[in-house]
Amino acid sequence: MPYKAYPPPGTPPGTLREGPERAAVPSRLNIIWYDKTELEEFSEGTVADCQKLAARAGFLWMHLTGVSNIELLQALGRFLDLHPLALEDVVEGRAPTKVEDYDSFLFMVTRLVQVGNGQTEEQISLFLGPRFLLSIQESDTDHFEIIRERLRHKQGLIRQSGVDYLAYTLLDYIVDSWFPVLETFGDRLEELEDRAIQRPDAKTMEQVQELRRSFFRLRRLIWPLRDALNTLLRGENQLITDHTRLYLRDCYDHAFQVVDLLENYREVTAGVVEVYLSSLSIRLNEIMKMLTVIATIFIPLTFITGLYGMNFSPEASPWNMPELRWRFGYLYALGVMLMVSGGLIIYFRRKKWL
Amino acid sequence: MPYKAYPPPGTPPGTLREGPERAAVPSRLNIIWYDKTELEEFSEGTVADCQKLAARAGFLWMHLTGVSNIELLQALGRFLDLHPLALEDVVEGRAPTKVEDYDSFLFMVTRLVQVGNGQTEEQISLFLGPRFLLSIQESDTDHFEIIRERLRHKQGLIRQSGVDYLAYTLLDYIVDSWFPVLETFGDRLEELEDRAIQRPDAKTMEQVQELRRSFFRLRRLIWPLRDALNTLLRGENQLITDHTRLYLRDCYDHAFQVVDLLENYREVTAGVVEVYLSSLSIRLNEIMKMLTVIATIFIPLTFITGLYGMNFSPEASPWNMPELRWRFGYLYALGVMLMVSGGLIIYFRRKKWL
Amino acid sequence: MPYKAYPPPGTPPGTLREGPERAAVPSRLNIIWYDKTELEEFSEGTVADCQKLAARAGFLWMHLTGVSNIELLQALGRFLDLHPLALEDVVEGRAPTKVEDYDSFLFMVTRLVQVGNGQTEEQISLFLGPRFLLSIQESDTDHFEIIRERLRHKQGLIRQSGVDYLAYTLLDYIVDSWFPVLETFGDRLEELEDRAIQRPDAKTMEQVQELRRSFFRLRRLIWPLRDALNTLLRGENQLITDHTRLYLRDCYDHAFQVVDLLENYREVTAGVVEVYLSSLSIRLNEIMKMLTVIATIFIPLTFITGLYGMNFSPEASPWNMPELRWRFGYLYALGVMLMVSGGLIIYFRRKKWL
Amino acid sequence: MPYKAYPPPGTPPGTLREGPERAAVPSRLNIIWYDKTELEEFSEGTVADCQKLAARAGFLWMHLTGVSNIELLQALGRFLDLHPLALEDVVEGRAPTKVEDYDSFLFMVTRLVQVGNGQTEEQISLFLGPRFLLSIQESDTDHFEIIRERLRHKQGLIRQSGVDYLAYTLLDYIVDSWFPVLETFGDRLEELEDRAIQRPDAKTMEQVQELRRSFFRLRRLIWPLRDALNTLLRGENQLITDHTRLYLRDCYDHAFQVVDLLENYREVTAGVVEVYLSSLSIRLNEIMKMLTVIATIFIPLTFITGLYGMNFSPEASPWNMPELRWRFGYLYALGVMLMVSGGLIIYFRRKKWL
Amino acid sequence: MPYKAYPPPGTPPGTLREGPERAAVPSRLNIIWYDKTELEEFSEGTVADCQKLAARAGFLWMHLTGVSNIELLQALGRFLDLHPLALEDVVEGRAPTKVEDYDSFLFMVTRLVQVGNGQTEEQISLFLGPRFLLSIQESDTDHFEIIRERLRHKQGLIRQSGVDYLAYTLLDYIVDSWFPVLETFGDRLEELEDRAIQRPDAKTMEQVQELRRSFFRLRRLIWPLRDALNTLLRGENQLITDHTRLYLRDCYDHAFQVVDLLENYREVTAGVVEVYLSSLSIRLNEIMKMLTVIATIFIPLTFITGLYGMNFSPEASPWNMPELRWRFGYLYALGVMLMVSGGLIIYFRRKKWL
Repeated sequence: MPYKAYPPPGTPPGTLREGPERAAVPSRLNIIWYDKTELEEFSEGTVADCQKLAARAGFLWMHLTGVSNIELLQALGRFLDLHPLALEDVVEGRAPTKVEDYDSFLFMVTRLVQVGNGQTEEQISLFLGPRFLLSIQESDTDHFEIIRERLRHKQGLIRQSGVDYLAYTLLDYIVDSWFPVLETFGDRLEELEDRAIQRPDAKTMEQVQELRRSFFRLRRLIWPLRDALNTLLRGENQLITDHTRLYLRDCYDHAFQVVDLLENYREVTAGVVEVYLSSLSIRLNEIMKMLTVIATIFIPLTFITGLYGMNFSPEASPWNMPELRWRFGYLYALGVMLMVSGGLIIYFRRKKWL
Repeated sequence: MPYKAYPPPGTPPGTLREGPERAAVPSRLNIIWYDKTELEEFSEGTVADCQKLAARAGFLWMHLTGVSNIELLQALGRFLDLHPLALEDVVEGRAPTKVEDYDSFLFMVTRLVQVGNGQTEEQISLFLGPRFLLSIQESDTDHFEIIRERLRHKQGLIRQSGVDYLAYTLLDYIVDSWFPVLETFGDRLEELEDRAIQRPDAKTMEQVQELRRSFFRLRRLIWPLRDALNTLLRGENQLITDHTRLYLRDCYDHAFQVVDLLENYREVTAGVVEVYLSSLSIRLNEIMKMLTVIATIFIPLTFITGLYGMNFSPEASPWNMPELRWRFGYLYALGVMLMVSGGLIIYFRRKKWL
Repeated sequence: MPYKAYPPPGTPPGTLREGPERAAVPSRLNIIWYDKTELEEFSEGTVADCQKLAARAGFLWMHLTGVSNIELLQALGRFLDLHPLALEDVVEGRAPTKVEDYDSFLFMVTRLVQVGNGQTEEQISLFLGPRFLLSIQESDTDHFEIIRERLRHKQGLIRQSGVDYLAYTLLDYIVDSWFPVLETFGDRLEELEDRAIQRPDAKTMEQVQELRRSFFRLRRLIWPLRDALNTLLRGENQLITDHTRLYLRDCYDHAFQVVDLLENYREVTAGVVEVYLSSLSIRLNEIMKMLTVIATIFIPLTFITGLYGMNFSPEASPWNMPELRWRFGYLYALGVMLMVSGGLIIYFRRKKWL
Repeated sequence: MPYKAYPPPGTPPGTLREGPERAAVPSRLNIIWYDKTELEEFSEGTVADCQKLAARAGFLWMHLTGVSNIELLQALGRFLDLHPLALEDVVEGRAPTKVEDYDSFLFMVTRLVQVGNGQTEEQISLFLGPRFLLSIQESDTDHFEIIRERLRHKQGLIRQSGVDYLAYTLLDYIVDSWFPVLETFGDRLEELEDRAIQRPDAKTMEQVQELRRSFFRLRRLIWPLRDALNTLLRGENQLITDHTRLYLRDCYDHAFQVVDLLENYREVTAGVVEVYLSSLSIRLNEIMKMLTVIATIFIPLTFITGLYGMNFSPEASPWNMPELRWRFGYLYALGVMLMVSGGLIIYFRRKKWL
Repeated sequence: MPYKAYPPPGTPPGTLREGPERAAVPSRLNIIWYDKTELEEFSEGTVADCQKLAARAGFLWMHLTGVSNIELLQALGRFLDLHPLALEDVVEGRAPTKVEDYDSFLFMVTRLVQVGNGQTEEQISLFLGPRFLLSIQESDTDHFEIIRERLRHKQGLIRQSGVDYLAYTLLDYIVDSWFPVLETFGDRLEELEDRAIQRPDAKTMEQVQELRRSFFRLRRLIWPLRDALNTLLRGENQLITDHTRLYLRDCYDHAFQVVDLLENYREVTAGVVEVYLSSLSIRLNEIMKMLTVIATIFIPLTFITGLYGMNFSPEASPWNMPELRWRFGYLYALGVMLMVSGGLIIYFRRKKWL
């Protein structure tokens, strides 16, 4: 089931409860302060570091790996004046993909997907302020090193623009993370289609259903992401400059392509089910054709052998089975059988059953 | 069928008719008056108590258990100036989930679901005024004790905020009550999927259909609840403060998750039906394969035994079944049979039928 | 087919043609004039009576039973200044459910359903002016006597309010007329589901399809009614007071429940078709299992009897069927058959086919 | 396929190409000039006639039959100042149903349907100016004589109103032309449903699919017509008076009924497919039941006859088939067979297979 | 899979990466400068040529074939001040069909489809400025020579109007390129339907699925094209004159026809699947009927021959099989068989199985 354990009804809102699975990932805070000319980085920073850096002009990117350290998160929340409900969404890890506008900052919940054994999704939460970006990931994997590299090497626009452009860069990375996953699924789908035609068994159907559910799940994740991007694009928010909006439009196009591919896969999956069911039907037809051909050819033959296996006494009367005493009775019987079976074989050939 | 008995056409509107099933639950009025510092509680209050408490500043939460006492309800209605149509909705218990704005108060109809033997729904009606909240439940179960506890212990924001926040707390509880129910259904669905593959019988299908109808029913209940929450969120109503709106957004997210899960289950259910039908088809294929293999192997053998069971008289002519008198005739016949059956077995192996 | 005969293309608009089926119902005009204190009633009134009563203050309810008297209808139309197209809709009886605003009056087309042998629909048309209500029904049945009673006995709000409230009362009656019909259909649906599982035959499917079409037809009737009510609710029209609008909201809720139930039935019907098809599949599986078990057990046995029925001459050689001359040859053959059949029975037990 | 040959890509817009099929219909221009008192008609008019009549007050209705005379059409276009793209739509005959507002005139493309051998659609194009109406039909059939009659005889409003009312009259005629076609299809559908139950064969399915495609095609034609009428109804256009708008509302209602019927038929068609497939399934069940009953009864009997047909030598040992020498051995064997078959028949009766 | 290789996540935006497949097509720039009277053309132009021509009044059409020369593209971008993201869309060739408004120019991404072995799509990108049009195609094929011809020969409006009309001409060409492709698919569909009825095999189903996926893919391409055209039609953009808008409306109609045809095909495809599955079902019915008829006729006959093949000794008792010694015993047995088989044949005739 896709969702993590929910809190019991009646829990006060804003309560931060640490999930057992994610407790294993220790929290680590990476801080990068930069402006057009300078850059400073703390790979294991503290909130105090943040506060020092925030005093200077320029932009602050805080990246938190792992949500097990609730105190650290709360300290960050107090420092940046984040709403407890948003922090709860971060910790719970089950918030829907969305953009929320809390006046002083934008809060975005996104999903990064990966495929290893089974497909995994990871919630990436972003808080975008006028001069800071706080990004929070759940797992240990270092996704964004490539972006840090671009920052450090003054590559492209990333150092020239503000934190809104940095946020776009992360969003772009996240959306692009969907493509390899979809490609893997596409390959599996093709494999399953071949199997559905060549050897349809219960396993095939199970896997088709699994895939179908994955597609459904992914569609339910990407649609709101696309809508959220659209909201950012068309929104009136001051935190995002017109310059960055142009780039978000590109990001939106990519999300659109993901949606497109998923719709495509959904259609293909429906087709695979049809192919599978019709393959079963064709198999049954073949099996029954086999049985019918064999039975139809041999049943009359067996009848004839039965006929001449009857014990009517030829001695009692000349009318009783005189064939048994004909000179060529046996050959005649064999001949009749040959003709009958030959006739039936020709008949089946004509019907294209053989 | 999901709906309780309807009144006969032509009944004047606003007529309060007590339903037979719900007459069994005696009405009990729990009253809590509170402000930031003080709290007073009557576990078996009267309308007179309410009137006394309403005279003081602070907030009043009246919680009515059971709708059998029509007079009490009418007295409350007169005291709080509630519209007879809204009261009719409360008593009938078949109103759609909705929010209605009657200028001086908001009227909300929600559904709390539980799962025991079969899933049960209970209508919870809320009347939210500027300084009062009247909540009405149908059954005897004490759902909201945990919230009363939070009130009594000054936990969290609940004592700091007004009745609109209290209403949110109830709504949040109600929405969260859906999760355990959905989890139970999710488990059943998984069970059914396994059964559909391993031993598909008529019972499986019946239960799938039952579950499917439950999901459909629940979807028809949660969609308007989600819309109602959205109305509250975006609405212009003065009774709900901006502060509480932020929390309602969280509640809305939860309702969204419920919708999401239900859509997911619906998709899975459709998949289970497909799996089930294809399992039946696979079974039939296996049964027919079995029959075809057995019949195809033995039919030619039986033909041969029939052949040498014919009574053509070898005495009448040397052409009549000379094999019967060969020295190794019997062994020759057995050999032919062995070859035929062996050949067929190899053939079926190649076709992967064995 | 649901629609009555259509006029030939090219007929001028506003032409009143009397349908053959409805000619049988003689037109009868019931007139009630009332204000808060007085009430006067003509059970067989004329247009002249109407004109006399209209001169006095107060409200006028004209109820016409049967549309066969075209002149009467035209006279009413001239008296109340009704548009010929609206009158054509009344007479044709095939207008879609709708609300039309003709400035000086509102024209509503609704459907009252009943279930006897087969389900019947009757068009009820309402013309609502500032001080008059003209309601027109097609059949002879006296639907609204209960409302006349409430008027005569000064029950509830009906005498205190204007004709818009009276119109609401009729609409409420009409919407509530759907519930008993739906209940009957619900019962039939349950019956059919049981039959689909226990003895699926062609008849079951026919009836499911019939029911499905009824539901479809009803859905196409109730949706525009719901929309029409919504139009009245939200509309700017002066003819309907805010007071009455509150009641119409209740009426709208009822229409919503009808829609809800119908959607529910539709889902259930789809489920019944699935159950039915899978029942057929299960039956086929059982039949084939039966055949396969019987055939598979007896085919090898019959082969053995055939084997020892062969006529290889034991005299010709000691190798020819020596079993026939063994002391316990027969018992040995019976034993082999017992073992073979026993083994197969155990095998089928293990496969759960027996 | 529904569309006529398309022009090769790269053809300049506004090029008038004469389609081969429609070249056969010679162009004929019927002109009627009328005002409230007078009427003048040319059954084979020219553009010069039009110009003469247009100089007088009153209204001009030009009706062109056949689009083979491109010069005539171009002359009309120049005279009335029509846009070349609109004329191209007229000549191509594959324009979607639509209303286009070219400031000085309204251009409408509609479809008139008829059913003979196969259903035919004909594009009727209308150009409505302040004082002229140009209607163009493709085929030879004289559809609108009935309307000319009404004009000539000063029937109804048609002579009192302007050309917009005349345009409505034509539209009304066109929409009403759908009903007989739908009725014919409805009858066919009922026939097919009966056949699907009683003798489902490949032909039935083919015809169902054909009908289904017709319905689909018609739906794709009527939807935009309905939308176009709605545009006219709600539009701001000066060419249509409020008086005529009321009548267009009626016409819209008729289009709505057509949509309604088509949706109905679509649902019924889906049902017929289900009935058909389940009929096939029921047939298969019956066939297999037959086979199973016969085989299951006779297989054990045949086994018994085989048993006593074995040649174990009673002389070799008293244990070898002593039954063969019993006094009532044969009767005993017959008795056993009778009991076995009787038992099986009772068993099948109980299972309701017989 | 429909999409070309995606860039790795984390690639900076606006990076132009040359795809391997398209590197093979050398870039060639065709330049046409024209005004109402003059025209100058460079079939292998450079950016310098463009700059020279742009200095003169009149319009500039640059057509780039092949996107392998990234430098050329970047030079054009700098010259016309195009946004790097738009250029990235051009080079990647996987952008969704769209119109983007970059204030100083309009950027359009369209798809031209062709059918050879398999259907191919090619991205055609258009940049429309006030006085220039830059069109970029991926493949080597010279699509637009026909339009260049019209320009050179002063045909039609093309020389009288601005570059917006030229852009329309290209769009019109692109939309019209869909029709021959759809016609080819329509023919294939008809073929497949015939095959589904006459000889349904696994291959048929595979091809139906392939076609279905093509239709789905094309629908996903044409829908946004239609929307993009609609945006152009209704948009406020200054670059497109009202005169050209009228022509775009025609182009939009064509796109609408494509959508219409595709919806049609989709419906037909769904029908073909139904026909296919029911054909399989009918086949199975026929096969089983065959088996049942043959088996049912011969099984009782074989039983009779088995009966008289039993070896009950007539010598041991007169009750043992006296028929064997009757004078006409054999003929009697043959007669019984004849009657039984005759009776069954009549029975099957009545059931219409023969």
